[in-house]
Amino acid sequence: MINIGIVGATGYSGVELIKLLLNHDEVIITKLFGNSSAGSLIEETHPSLRGMISLQVEQFRPAALEEIDLLFVAMPSGQSMQVVKEAVNANVKVIDIGGDFRLKNVEEYKRYYNHEHTEAELLSSAVYGLSEWNEQEISSAKLVANPGCYPTSILLALLPLLKEKLIESKNIGITSYSGTSGAGKSVAINMLFSEVNESVRAYKVGNHQHIPEIKQYLEHFSGVETNFSFVPHLLPVTRGIYTTIHTSLKNNIDETEVINAFKHNYSSAPFIRFIGTEIPEMKNVVNTNFCDIGFKIYENGTLVLFSTIDNLVKGAAGQAIQNMNIMFGFQQTEGLLKCSKKQSLQIK
Amino acid sequence: MINIGIVGATGYSGVELIKLLLNHDEVIITKLFGNSSAGSLIEETHPSLRGMISLQVEQFRPAALEEIDLLFVAMPSGQSMQVVKEAVNANVKVIDIGGDFRLKNVEEYKRYYNHEHTEAELLSSAVYGLSEWNEQEISSAKLVANPGCYPTSILLALLPLLKEKLIESKNIGITSYSGTSGAGKSVAINMLFSEVNESVRAYKVGNHQHIPEIKQYLEHFSGVETNFSFVPHLLPVTRGIYTTIHTSLKNNIDETEVINAFKHNYSSAPFIRFIGTEIPEMKNVVNTNFCDIGFKIYENGTLVLFSTIDNLVKGAAGQAIQNMNIMFGFQQTEGLLKCSKKQSLQIK
Amino acid sequence: MINIGIVGATGYSGVELIKLLLNHDEVIITKLFGNSSAGSLIEETHPSLRGMISLQVEQFRPAALEEIDLLFVAMPSGQSMQVVKEAVNANVKVIDIGGDFRLKNVEEYKRYYNHEHTEAELLSSAVYGLSEWNEQEISSAKLVANPGCYPTSILLALLPLLKEKLIESKNIGITSYSGTSGAGKSVAINMLFSEVNESVRAYKVGNHQHIPEIKQYLEHFSGVETNFSFVPHLLPVTRGIYTTIHTSLKNNIDETEVINAFKHNYSSAPFIRFIGTEIPEMKNVVNTNFCDIGFKIYENGTLVLFSTIDNLVKGAAGQAIQNMNIMFGFQQTEGLLKCSKKQSLQIK
Amino acid sequence: MINIGIVGATGYSGVELIKLLLNHDEVIITKLFGNSSAGSLIEETHPSLRGMISLQVEQFRPAALEEIDLLFVAMPSGQSMQVVKEAVNANVKVIDIGGDFRLKNVEEYKRYYNHEHTEAELLSSAVYGLSEWNEQEISSAKLVANPGCYPTSILLALLPLLKEKLIESKNIGITSYSGTSGAGKSVAINMLFSEVNESVRAYKVGNHQHIPEIKQYLEHFSGVETNFSFVPHLLPVTRGIYTTIHTSLKNNIDETEVINAFKHNYSSAPFIRFIGTEIPEMKNVVNTNFCDIGFKIYENGTLVLFSTIDNLVKGAAGQAIQNMNIMFGFQQTEGLLKCSKKQSLQIK
Repeated sequence: MINIGIVGATGYSGVELIKLLLNHDEVIITKLFGNSSAGSLIEETHPSLRGMISLQVEQFRPAALEEIDLLFVAMPSGQSMQVVKEAVNANVKVIDIGGDFRLKNVEEYKRYYNHEHTEAELLSSAVYGLSEWNEQEISSAKLVANPGCYPTSILLALLPLLKEKLIESKNIGITSYSGTSGAGKSVAINMLFSEVNESVRAYKVGNHQHIPEIKQYLEHFSGVETNFSFVPHLLPVTRGIYTTIHTSLKNNIDETEVINAFKHNYSSAPFIRFIGTEIPEMKNVVNTNFCDIGFKIYENGTLVLFSTIDNLVKGAAGQAIQNMNIMFGFQQTEGLLKCSKKQSLQIK
Repeated sequence: MINIGIVGATGYSGVELIKLLLNHDEVIITKLFGNSSAGSLIEETHPSLRGMISLQVEQFRPAALEEIDLLFVAMPSGQSMQVVKEAVNANVKVIDIGGDFRLKNVEEYKRYYNHEHTEAELLSSAVYGLSEWNEQEISSAKLVANPGCYPTSILLALLPLLKEKLIESKNIGITSYSGTSGAGKSVAINMLFSEVNESVRAYKVGNHQHIPEIKQYLEHFSGVETNFSFVPHLLPVTRGIYTTIHTSLKNNIDETEVINAFKHNYSSAPFIRFIGTEIPEMKNVVNTNFCDIGFKIYENGTLVLFSTIDNLVKGAAGQAIQNMNIMFGFQQTEGLLKCSKKQSLQIK
Repeated sequence: MINIGIVGATGYSGVELIKLLLNHDEVIITKLFGNSSAGSLIEETHPSLRGMISLQVEQFRPAALEEIDLLFVAMPSGQSMQVVKEAVNANVKVIDIGGDFRLKNVEEYKRYYNHEHTEAELLSSAVYGLSEWNEQEISSAKLVANPGCYPTSILLALLPLLKEKLIESKNIGITSYSGTSGAGKSVAINMLFSEVNESVRAYKVGNHQHIPEIKQYLEHFSGVETNFSFVPHLLPVTRGIYTTIHTSLKNNIDETEVINAFKHNYSSAPFIRFIGTEIPEMKNVVNTNFCDIGFKIYENGTLVLFSTIDNLVKGAAGQAIQNMNIMFGFQQTEGLLKCSKKQSLQIK
Repeated sequence: MINIGIVGATGYSGVELIKLLLNHDEVIITKLFGNSSAGSLIEETHPSLRGMISLQVEQFRPAALEEIDLLFVAMPSGQSMQVVKEAVNANVKVIDIGGDFRLKNVEEYKRYYNHEHTEAELLSSAVYGLSEWNEQEISSAKLVANPGCYPTSILLALLPLLKEKLIESKNIGITSYSGTSGAGKSVAINMLFSEVNESVRAYKVGNHQHIPEIKQYLEHFSGVETNFSFVPHLLPVTRGIYTTIHTSLKNNIDETEVINAFKHNYSSAPFIRFIGTEIPEMKNVVNTNFCDIGFKIYENGTLVLFSTIDNLVKGAAGQAIQNMNIMFGFQQTEGLLKCSKKQSLQIK
């Protein structure tokens, strides 16, 4: 049994973490930290938790770290740095679900996040928590930078093809659509139901903070230089990301090689459901930690890739728990997926 | 041609007014007033208006009333009183879409709206703008208090039966569901898409400000004392109100008498579509000024009434224009409804 | 470990059962039966199940019952009778999620379901599976008739008050709103997205098949004769039922007595979240087996009750598993709810 | 006054046509034709039309053409050819909203529509009804092939840039999202609310029937050979198409040239709202005949184009009426758009 603390417990990712961790047999939720909600019971601010947990939200203070083995941090960008530093100093493992420790370059950080990075010295030791591509590093990490939701859906789809050099790396057009929970639980007129419902809009075109994260880790894990354009859109659904990528196959590459690249790279990845030339549907992954990936090759050599995840699970709290499982030597699926007992017997 | 001014032009009701008035052959939108948006062009704050109108939003000032024949006021409760008073003093006709001039009793006003009424002397001359039930008064009014969205849907369904004494007036259970635009365009966490979508909740149970309005005008137009309970709910749609009312038929009243009561009272009401024992659907009235009304009698003598409107049209801007048409002697449907030319010929 | 079979595995309730049972530590899904889908793999017809289970759907045949300890039947009305009979004859326990074994009166069955009941002799032994009100009967039942979704939400809210004689039992107005999954997965133009979205409509007014079920069990469990009107509506959400009930308090009954009635009757019910005079929200129960219940007393003595459930969980598959837990002596929450480990320790 | 007939009056496009034509001062809806609905009144099959029109739907017969000046045909592909032929032979002008007369190549037609074209001799005289790009041809046409919804959104965005040779024409990645009304009003399990809601999916990837239409008319109007990939998606909204296009600017082309290309080509197009580097929102065009177009240039030379329309208006019935206006010499905006009277005065 390990003791868990969560900073930012009352946001969408924080509550999702709580719900998922309650299903995990090896952990106890010991501490919940928040700011405006400090002093209240979590099940009062989030009535959906009633009957499952009763715990007071506290103001974070370093002394509380003594009771904790692992700290999840789910704060808006810029607010987590101090907390992360204190946890690292106290030798408590940290998984930061926010964006503050993903970029290695502080100039780039400042440019896309619009404020200074105050704990740059921690960046070198931060391990990027893309579970399927960084398992070994994660297993020994003290600070995991959990991937962004868009990057997760994009990296998982592109990396096998880039790494195996099957596509032109300089001509990638990425279109992603996200549900509204990705914007977090803060007030903004343009996130009102009346504004989002029965509509769609692109946003942060060309300056979304996930652009440098995508580029950095596409290149880091594939070893290939890339050139892409990424356009995020807001969708009138609560949860889920759907990504459609236009790329060009290299000469003479055929469907079989594409299929093999995915099979080979994800042979032991329980949360990647590669479905070949079938087309993913967002609803199949909502409320799960799965990433469904499919593709189609056009007559003109275009390869279109499809990838879909739940932004709050595989794109945030779920992948964070998957990373926790890797860090603490639990089964990767613990708390996230139960398979048919019949099948489990067959598989082992 | 009459010259129109709109105070509160950038809220949901204000923009709906603009769109509907552009379809009206007898009016010119001359002035738009707002607070935070003053100085900007209306089509910049509301890009949906581009290509239809280009007009600067101004801070309201009494001098501007000189250019106006009719002022629509679409402000949150408590903010319209001063403006209305100045217009009335300047002898400019006013239709107030808000709730400030509907209740005759200032104590009740204070209790339900949570602030004082500062222009109580205007209340006696304010005419309630339920077009189908108050046409004569409206035609000569200088200040029309446009009905609330819930009251419109409820009064139109109940009044014929109360007035003709077909139902027990002391045992009425009213359940209404409204789209989110009814809450207006102001920020609140509980109106975020992620909070409203895939959910339903009752709200302001027992203390909604429309309760005294419903009671006052049920009794005023029917002459019958009533006792009812009203429960409003928030629905994950942008526009529309659906009201379901449980009542008891008086002894020996049958289906035919119910039908006749509606036919008789609404024989010349172009926006009431009484559909007998068919069941209304909200989508049939969205974006129209229609109110669809149906009913069913149960074996146990219960009469269930159904009524549905678009909260922004018949429940706000549309009925306001219908009232304007009555006040200025235009056809009641002008700007709101075009019928088949073939039929028009037959009707006349 | 008990072996489970599911008839009608590919409908919405069937798939929900599969997903929930995969979380249950004491059961193995052994057999899936279907008609049009027989021969296919369940994870091909329902790609959301990929990576969790791989099992062929078979045509039901009695011989298959030998491998099964418990059969869930999730078929449209009229199609389950033969299967249920064969299972009962083979001494296999059955939980029927459909409506065929809920009504004791075959005339009433025929009137509301529009076909004959062919296995009337089984009706007397069928036990109504309203878990919180019939635990003892369920624990020894061979055939459980799982409650309908609307009746579950209504009975759980009304029974404590009827049984303790706090409300007038002859004057109850029930308005319920359901998500579209309640209509099942069969084609109908009026269930198309374009027809349901941004709309609401009442349906089957006065002749819904749940009316006699509600009446029978309201009276059975409370011992009080009732008179009510029930109006179901279709809501543009996928999952969830929201019920609002207008009733009259008996003379001199106050808020405390209402609260005590709920507390008393549900003191050991893990899935009833009675929240007093707070107002339930549908989203708090979606994807859970909880029923959230609240109320308000109006000045005029009206008591308005609110109740919300997930129609596919507490209203179908979840309550079926709760009943299975009761029948087989498992913890009632097994497979349905995991609570905070800290709290569990405190509770025990 | 011209007399209008509509074949396929009860589908989504047919009903939209009726509603829009009722707003048109120069036309009378004289005949409505349908198959399964023949014999019924249109306002009974579509209660939203009650109070606006009362007309019996008839089985189409050539003799009825004598009463008609213009026939709109809104039928599923393959069903309109015979009707169109008879209208053309009777010298009645036709606007076909379906896809049967858009492709010039019958082999391609067969490949994408999966049946033979039986009236190939009419193809040479059919005029493609992209109003903004083919006004002169349309003005004298006897048979107009109204554009598909996706092609309308795509052609209007790309043509100015292709024609003026500002982008690489061989590297275009098109991603479009459509509301469900685009699929028409026919039953299909995968179009049920429960299947579409809270989800997204690509469909007909690489074989959508609009692919050859897009290619034919991109090249016809621009004179440039193209190579593109098009991926349509289904969106959980009723109405609207949103298209995001990744292209590459040619060397040395800058923002100003892009802006000028749009301004120059659409200077007199009342329904094109080019908004420069702002981002369109779908809700701004829903229920209008507008097409909103915006763009962004990325640092790497990528030009991303955005275009949004209402699929039932500019993508079907609205553009059909715009074409009718051109054919009969009415103002292009008649029945489709009323502008501020103040502005109109300024503009003229």
